[in-house]
Amino acid sequence: MAVNAPELSPPLPVPGFKVGTASCGVKSPNLKGRRQDVTLIVADVPCHAAGVFTNNRFRAACVRHGEATLASHSESIRAIVANAGNANAGLGEMETVWGRELIETGAAAANVSADVVLSASTGVIGTPFPIERIRDGMHEASESLHDDNWEAAAHAIRTTDTFPKWSSAQVQIDGKTYTLTGIAKGSGMIHPNMATMLGFVATDAPVAAADLKTMLKRVANRSFNCISVDGDTSTNDTLYLLSSGIGLGYAPLADTTLFEQALTELCIELAQLIVRDGEGVSKFVTIEVTGAASENDARTVGRAIAVSPLVKTAFAGNDANWGRILSAVGNAGVAIDTNGITLSADDVLMFENGNLHPDYRDAMGMAVFANPEFTITLDLGMGSEAATIWTGDLTHEYITINAEYRT
Amino acid sequence: MAVNAPELSPPLPVPGFKVGTASCGVKSPNLKGRRQDVTLIVADVPCHAAGVFTNNRFRAACVRHGEATLASHSESIRAIVANAGNANAGLGEMETVWGRELIETGAAAANVSADVVLSASTGVIGTPFPIERIRDGMHEASESLHDDNWEAAAHAIRTTDTFPKWSSAQVQIDGKTYTLTGIAKGSGMIHPNMATMLGFVATDAPVAAADLKTMLKRVANRSFNCISVDGDTSTNDTLYLLSSGIGLGYAPLADTTLFEQALTELCIELAQLIVRDGEGVSKFVTIEVTGAASENDARTVGRAIAVSPLVKTAFAGNDANWGRILSAVGNAGVAIDTNGITLSADDVLMFENGNLHPDYRDAMGMAVFANPEFTITLDLGMGSEAATIWTGDLTHEYITINAEYRT
Repeated sequence: MAVNAPELSPPLPVPGFKVGTASCGVKSPNLKGRRQDVTLIVADVPCHAAGVFTNNRFRAACVRHGEATLASHSESIRAIVANAGNANAGLGEMETVWGRELIETGAAAANVSADVVLSASTGVIGTPFPIERIRDGMHEASESLHDDNWEAAAHAIRTTDTFPKWSSAQVQIDGKTYTLTGIAKGSGMIHPNMATMLGFVATDAPVAAADLKTMLKRVANRSFNCISVDGDTSTNDTLYLLSSGIGLGYAPLADTTLFEQALTELCIELAQLIVRDGEGVSKFVTIEVTGAASENDARTVGRAIAVSPLVKTAFAGNDANWGRILSAVGNAGVAIDTNGITLSADDVLMFENGNLHPDYRDAMGMAVFANPEFTITLDLGMGSEAATIWTGDLTHEYITINAEYRT
Repeated sequence: MAVNAPELSPPLPVPGFKVGTASCGVKSPNLKGRRQDVTLIVADVPCHAAGVFTNNRFRAACVRHGEATLASHSESIRAIVANAGNANAGLGEMETVWGRELIETGAAAANVSADVVLSASTGVIGTPFPIERIRDGMHEASESLHDDNWEAAAHAIRTTDTFPKWSSAQVQIDGKTYTLTGIAKGSGMIHPNMATMLGFVATDAPVAAADLKTMLKRVANRSFNCISVDGDTSTNDTLYLLSSGIGLGYAPLADTTLFEQALTELCIELAQLIVRDGEGVSKFVTIEVTGAASENDARTVGRAIAVSPLVKTAFAGNDANWGRILSAVGNAGVAIDTNGITLSADDVLMFENGNLHPDYRDAMGMAVFANPEFTITLDLGMGSEAATIWTGDLTHEYITINAEYRT
């Protein structure tokens, strides 16, 4: 039950990239041919690249490998190989072996060196990795490589996602038009710090790897790290950014401001799509925290609201229970003066400077909370920093998905 | 749907204490006479006393007042006045006024000075406090004061609790028998650090206030702070301990070890009752973390498992999903070596030294998780410290309770 899933315009091809997919039955042989589950993204030229990874101490083979590869080859990446249906995680020593085989399989299919291939796996943890089936699938995917195949890839990286997620943008810098196309998958376990989330962004804007690295961290902190579905984070979360521009012979951008802005907007759009498709989510709630002493404080308070089961069930129940919101704020671990708090839901002022507003009536808040989308605004009265968090509610369907199916 | 709620033996009277209750319709006038909702605990003599309170930055009037009273009168407490149905929280300036009136009402009913009265309120946040009805109720409660009335009090402090919770113990020290009787209420919002939980323990064991204070903190850390229902903590959580012994003329205990042991066991029993009655809980799960570098690390890891929605829904679904457990461990924010982890469910070894055990089969774990009670044992392989956490599962009924009713 996705919340207002938008009609997406077709994704744009990005100069220098081709994409292929296949269906090989990663999760189970009898799914072969029924849903795409392997993806190959191949660059015609060496790409400058960056990655942001999970903070979970259990880091799947693909995460460990991706980090190492970017440390040594961040200016010459040629391919991303991805699979859904099996995370290749929690498997001890075999995980590393299978992770390496996935890379080699992808390198052979892309006809590039294994040293410059990144990988990403998502799906069930702890089930042996079906490398033979994936090898067959990757070969098949290489036969479908095409520059206009991003939509298929957005389908193929899904697990429990109910719709494919992509976004494209074009940005004009110094008279030249560059393209950005990103795909993502999310659904359950989504939380600040990038829970079971995969995101791949390709661009032909010429930005050097050193700049991409710091930029991608900033962008993730304002997009994917600002969403929460259930507060859990996974072993495999990965965001990759590949830039073909320098390899295509374009001069590196002197000023990356416009590009970073376009990248941030694109990643926010992908992140919001993930929340809209969160497991069991029936509401899309924006939490704006203002008046904080630091951006970090603002984000911490926003996340505390977003992950509280009592707040999330109140969202689900159309219950404008501001007491639960304030209690979550009080639990955030951030120094606040409770007398300085002001709280609104859309344009309804509920709480002002630590007191319930005299004009506020329950029915006013209830009317806002009955909508499928609304904004909670919380001013801490401590400073001028702010952050925005996007989250959903906690519903019966979340329990059904996660108690009754193994993911 | 409480999990294996035990048949409790009747609570024991404690020398020096009388208890009264009444039904005054705190939450709504039409509940008057239908359920007990005010409680008065009166000591015949000045008591040495201690309290442990919520860590939430929003602290209700009763918490602020109780802390201040114990700072100045910890050797002369004469009464606790409590109400269910309204938390007197989130009400701005009126909260302090009403909190003071509650104390004065209780002092008048108990016929003691207001300076030596502690209070505790629990229930809905943000609704005006019905002090007039409570005043009438408190007067009525004073007429039922009796030393054998603890069971009634255990009923009267409940909110969404489905059964009353009490525990009594006797301990022999230096040839004399002392009694401890405690009552508690919990249900939703229960978490380490004492979420919407009230606990009152009375004893005639003669322990000085200075000793009680440090002891109660230690005991809370090994009992009430080791349980989790939904990870939320409240504005009103309070644990009070009153000792009449010194006031009754007994010589203070030279060695409090045996008393602390009895108090710890009693508080663990109350804490476990709270988990068994957690909102929507259908499983009672013990999480034992061993091999930690510090007790604090062990507790942090145990809590991370206990609050993960993905782990809790796996419990609900009888799904021995060890991948979710390990992912939660990895998210605990504690330095661990994932290659050192060993994990069991009851006597089934699932994961050993970072690898899935070769003899482990899904069906073995599923058989354990199908039980209403089981124990997860996690060895971190980092040291010799340990902690135990008790928690429940996350079910449809939790969503129903919290999305469809305002608490």
